[in-house]
Amino acid sequence: MEIIHSSKEIQNRMIAARAEGKRIGFVPTMGALHTGHIALAEKVRPDCDILVLSIFVNPLQFGPSEDLDKYPRTLESDAEKAQAAGVDIIFAPSPREMYPQGFETTVSCGSITTRLEGAARPGHFDGVTTVVLKLFNIVQPHVSVFGQKDAQQVLVIRRMVEDLSIPVELDILPTVRESDGLAMSSRNAYLTSEERLQGPIIQRGLLDAQEAWNRGERNAEQLRKIVLNCYAQSSLMTTEYVSVADYSCVELSGEISSEVLLSVVCRTAVSQTRLIDNSIMKLLD
Amino acid sequence: MEIIHSSKEIQNRMIAARAEGKRIGFVPTMGALHTGHIALAEKVRPDCDILVLSIFVNPLQFGPSEDLDKYPRTLESDAEKAQAAGVDIIFAPSPREMYPQGFETTVSCGSITTRLEGAARPGHFDGVTTVVLKLFNIVQPHVSVFGQKDAQQVLVIRRMVEDLSIPVELDILPTVRESDGLAMSSRNAYLTSEERLQGPIIQRGLLDAQEAWNRGERNAEQLRKIVLNCYAQSSLMTTEYVSVADYSCVELSGEISSEVLLSVVCRTAVSQTRLIDNSIMKLLD
Repeated sequence: MEIIHSSKEIQNRMIAARAEGKRIGFVPTMGALHTGHIALAEKVRPDCDILVLSIFVNPLQFGPSEDLDKYPRTLESDAEKAQAAGVDIIFAPSPREMYPQGFETTVSCGSITTRLEGAARPGHFDGVTTVVLKLFNIVQPHVSVFGQKDAQQVLVIRRMVEDLSIPVELDILPTVRESDGLAMSSRNAYLTSEERLQGPIIQRGLLDAQEAWNRGERNAEQLRKIVLNCYAQSSLMTTEYVSVADYSCVELSGEISSEVLLSVVCRTAVSQTRLIDNSIMKLLD
Repeated sequence: MEIIHSSKEIQNRMIAARAEGKRIGFVPTMGALHTGHIALAEKVRPDCDILVLSIFVNPLQFGPSEDLDKYPRTLESDAEKAQAAGVDIIFAPSPREMYPQGFETTVSCGSITTRLEGAARPGHFDGVTTVVLKLFNIVQPHVSVFGQKDAQQVLVIRRMVEDLSIPVELDILPTVRESDGLAMSSRNAYLTSEERLQGPIIQRGLLDAQEAWNRGERNAEQLRKIVLNCYAQSSLMTTEYVSVADYSCVELSGEISSEVLLSVVCRTAVSQTRLIDNSIMKLLD
């Protein structure tokens, strides 16, 4: 496995690889690799000839009061994990490599980016789509994998890929969880041990709503209330939002006749960690 | 020569061509092909295996009060001219093909797009960069040619290509002119015969400034005045702007120590045609 820092170097090599008929798989990450990232790499490994994983803590997608500076950077242990997962090349550019002096271009995906995480984190999705498009141009992947854990991010990237006719397949993997149900996240490292113990409540709220849905509950307000009631049991988390929305992230109300993206954000009391999770509630045929 | 309307069809073919090692050249146009467009095609023809010319009157780059509806659409004669110039494939999508229901993505290149033509035509350059990026993704060119006639457009597209690491070479060709010096433009077809007779004045103003520059004139206000004095001789044109700017399209004042983009816009009195032209004034070494 190689680690490449230069975008020009990896781009030239990937263009040459494509011209030789090689199939390129790509896992974009911000590093601090956990089992969820590794699952993405292992999923796409058999589906490509060259597997590239990028590690870049993208300043554009962090707000001014967010955790850009303290976000974990662990390239050495990341490299070991990536190699074990079959990654061929780690692309690890510096911020200056990605955004040289004079950089001013933004890719923006419209109304969906103003809702939910976009409302809570203004500019976040513009930062995501701008860096992902640039990474696609540099790495030239045939297929790129993303985790369902960032459900709205998946929807936004789908919007971009479709709107701009980007020739890449998106492969979306279910959220990987700790044994007690907490969604894997690099930010879990911020949690105090007491907060960590309460982590599973986040998924429990989603499962409560899913059970109600399976029993036939279709009222948006009721479904929201079920999740909120569950989260009220936690002494170490406040609920930032519980969203019952359609696939454009438009909030639903009353009786629901479409499939639902149920997404939640909790913030822990001590470490002030923002934890996100979601589930899709499908219509039964 | 073929005419293809489906973006998926041409994209699949160009990806396959790339994988076979073919070099793809690309000339994006809005049709109504004139000698300037043909010069672009002929320039890139020896430099590629497959030459694609797109014809798409892009609604995104027209303002609400602009000439989108009356912009000339002449596919049949365009096809003849393109074939004679050695074009292999015309890509002629419909607006619905390029912007299906739900399309919401915008590519925006920052401060340069707010100046000059961007100030005069709000949103124009976002429309240009969005469509050009999408066309690049569809056509997959190794090299794409643009005319220096749209000087700011060239600078904006360079910004986008650099910022987003788009793997395409840009080849910029000098403005092609009628025998009397009027820059070729599809919009020249709007001119009345009296307006057409005064057309050469636009270039004359640029040449007057260039002569003064060559004699050592470096004062920005003086250079502007020389152009304006020339245009004051025309009874059938008003001057929308005369810009003496740097390559970021920032207006210069006082003594100039950088290279200059001198760009002008005139509007004719009867047909209300907007005519643009420009020249680069280089520092003598």
